[in-house]
Amino acid sequence: MTQLESARAGVVTPEMARMAEKEGMDPEIIREGMARGVIVIPRNRQRAEVEPVGIGKGLRTKVNASIGTSPECPEPAGEMEKLAVAVAAGADTIMDLSTGGDIDGMRTATLGGTVLPIGSVPVYQAAIESIERYGSVVDMTGEDMFKAIEKHAVDGIDFMAVHCAINHDVVERLKNQGRVTDIVSRGGAFLTGWMLHNQKENPLYEQFDRLLEIALRYDVTLSVGDAIRPGCIADSLDRAQVQGLVLVGELVQRALDAGVQVMVEGPGHVPADQIPATILLQKQLCHQVPYFVLGNLVTDIAPGYDHITSAIGGTMASMAGADFICYVTPAEHLRLPTAADVHEGVIAARIAAHAGDLVKKVKGAWEWDLSMSRARKALDWEKQISLAIDPARAARYRAERNRAGSEACSMCGDYCAMKVVGQYLGAAGGSC
Amino acid sequence: MTQLESARAGVVTPEMARMAEKEGMDPEIIREGMARGVIVIPRNRQRAEVEPVGIGKGLRTKVNASIGTSPECPEPAGEMEKLAVAVAAGADTIMDLSTGGDIDGMRTATLGGTVLPIGSVPVYQAAIESIERYGSVVDMTGEDMFKAIEKHAVDGIDFMAVHCAINHDVVERLKNQGRVTDIVSRGGAFLTGWMLHNQKENPLYEQFDRLLEIALRYDVTLSVGDAIRPGCIADSLDRAQVQGLVLVGELVQRALDAGVQVMVEGPGHVPADQIPATILLQKQLCHQVPYFVLGNLVTDIAPGYDHITSAIGGTMASMAGADFICYVTPAEHLRLPTAADVHEGVIAARIAAHAGDLVKKVKGAWEWDLSMSRARKALDWEKQISLAIDPARAARYRAERNRAGSEACSMCGDYCAMKVVGQYLGAAGGSC
Repeated sequence: MTQLESARAGVVTPEMARMAEKEGMDPEIIREGMARGVIVIPRNRQRAEVEPVGIGKGLRTKVNASIGTSPECPEPAGEMEKLAVAVAAGADTIMDLSTGGDIDGMRTATLGGTVLPIGSVPVYQAAIESIERYGSVVDMTGEDMFKAIEKHAVDGIDFMAVHCAINHDVVERLKNQGRVTDIVSRGGAFLTGWMLHNQKENPLYEQFDRLLEIALRYDVTLSVGDAIRPGCIADSLDRAQVQGLVLVGELVQRALDAGVQVMVEGPGHVPADQIPATILLQKQLCHQVPYFVLGNLVTDIAPGYDHITSAIGGTMASMAGADFICYVTPAEHLRLPTAADVHEGVIAARIAAHAGDLVKKVKGAWEWDLSMSRARKALDWEKQISLAIDPARAARYRAERNRAGSEACSMCGDYCAMKVVGQYLGAAGGSC
Repeated sequence: MTQLESARAGVVTPEMARMAEKEGMDPEIIREGMARGVIVIPRNRQRAEVEPVGIGKGLRTKVNASIGTSPECPEPAGEMEKLAVAVAAGADTIMDLSTGGDIDGMRTATLGGTVLPIGSVPVYQAAIESIERYGSVVDMTGEDMFKAIEKHAVDGIDFMAVHCAINHDVVERLKNQGRVTDIVSRGGAFLTGWMLHNQKENPLYEQFDRLLEIALRYDVTLSVGDAIRPGCIADSLDRAQVQGLVLVGELVQRALDAGVQVMVEGPGHVPADQIPATILLQKQLCHQVPYFVLGNLVTDIAPGYDHITSAIGGTMASMAGADFICYVTPAEHLRLPTAADVHEGVIAARIAAHAGDLVKKVKGAWEWDLSMSRARKALDWEKQISLAIDPARAARYRAERNRAGSEACSMCGDYCAMKVVGQYLGAAGGSC
């Protein structure tokens, strides 16, 4: 049985119990949420040990970091360093999006390198091997796609982005819409190119039941890919996107009916005021299953700072109900990220997730800020640093440009409001 | 006549005309907005040359960068470097918050170092000189405060934060509220300490008319300081804050009646879902005058990343109607910022301002993103870099980890969606 089927059968699995404990929640509430499909625990039964990470309603908003080899950087060593950096920075899941060198080897290394849930996009590998084998992505067969998916499942991949929700109906609407950036999903681009060249329907859409069988067998959580997500502010919430989302909703229903754990991927570039509607629409059309957003990026004009444009939109998405945020690094739109970029990306996404959790009143979120504020008021630097989202950075900044042992920080020095007011207003509130 | 009085008299001043041109707006609309008090142009008539920067309704959201000497770093050289960095990064105004060394000399240097509008907080200097002269901030006289204000006005300061909106009524409500962080405004802390020790009313509140006379004489824009702003998420929108805001509203009305340009300063730490109400309340209570926010910071737990927590809240504030954003650097809560921190802070605040401007449909905002997206679709790297909010950083990232002359970037390399789709979907939209 999948985690979803167990939940429906009334069984609290060890994964549900352990995850409930971590979240400080009643296991029965977790089970009930899983039975309804509003919570998933990505956990391939092939993997010996996977940290049970819950994604969905009422839970702490989770953060994914993507790594992977590429033709430019085919060596796994650099990617394994990024994996370690992402885990240390507090990522909840890792996606291995390798497209270069020994893709199978890299996947095995990633799966062996952490107990966090691991995601992948099998169609990348299928497309790349098709280019190597036949010289072109359009010569890939449906069989190639499913073989890649099955291989990833057998290897133990816990969740998979699958670009099923694009068919000729959607492509037609993309064409007649006249988008600025057409398609920016790599998987979406491969499949659209394939469909247009071959004048055939998307095999992942047409043979969705075959996909469901594989997912069911290994309890792979499907992440129904946002093949048609807008790639810029101007394209947001257009007819192509909404048509794609309608299709996603139909596929989600089939996955839930089959007992397959499923979530939905979302944009991408969204003007800030369209974020609440974007989240609401997904939740409404897709049976309230967990929503995995990339960003949202609230402007196109800040390459080099897209961890910030994404943290802005990520907060608003999380507030509005997004459950899972894919990090975006400062390198987005410009080049492959370095390990330092990975660190910045994970922390920025965690800030967004947490700022949203404060609004969603997720258990423990409010208390974290309160503890920090009390430590701040008390000028308790050790505690402020230990409570910081990135204690090492806070400690480093604190050590710089401050006199050793100074009570306040050099920002205000002797004129620190905490110190000044403490003398005259000692009894009013804080512990100073 | 002040700019406000001119506007009311039906006169479009050269400052209004030039500012309207920069914003791409009808000068008459600017004049009308200034007459109603919903737009200000901070411009002390003592200064020979000041770039006319408009702040308020319908205009591009502006960004302030604060610099200044301190007892820890009393040398002006480092601060002048920060001034240059802030201007280069695109700050619209500068505040000189010096508290160390030759405070008068630093102010003169700042005023001479840029044509941007310059703001200050005269009570800092009054308090510090009081400590030097009498040994304590509480022995400062009302006369000392007004002398500092007049000196800054004579020197040419264009806008001043003045902590008038705190009186015993507000302090009493602060006490009975029982806040976590009491007061975090330095000026607010000085004045509260002074009021409690001397058992007297705040001179800046009691003699507000005297302040208005000075402002009128030099056309100094008053920034009615948020002496009682909450210093943490838990204290947001409490009785003390709202009581302070009621007082601000009364003082704003008196300033407008006197023909004095005025804006209002706001928080600070605000949970994301409270930002729209925070902005709306200020606008309603304070006659819709421009709102100058610090942040808003949407969580307390990210010291070292408060440029990001502020960019999140700054976007939401800008969307909701905030007109002017004070930058927050990554060093906030930990130490004095470096020049590099100043750069990060200005860019993060500009991203927030712009993401809000996209929503407010400020002239030119949407077009900027559209141009970038078209350049991105066309893989036109030169144009993408020139359109980036920080072209130098975009160029540096582009130069790293990419093969020289490569058409795509190394993020996707040959599997770039723009390239793949371009082959099969050339006619659909973009220029690829």
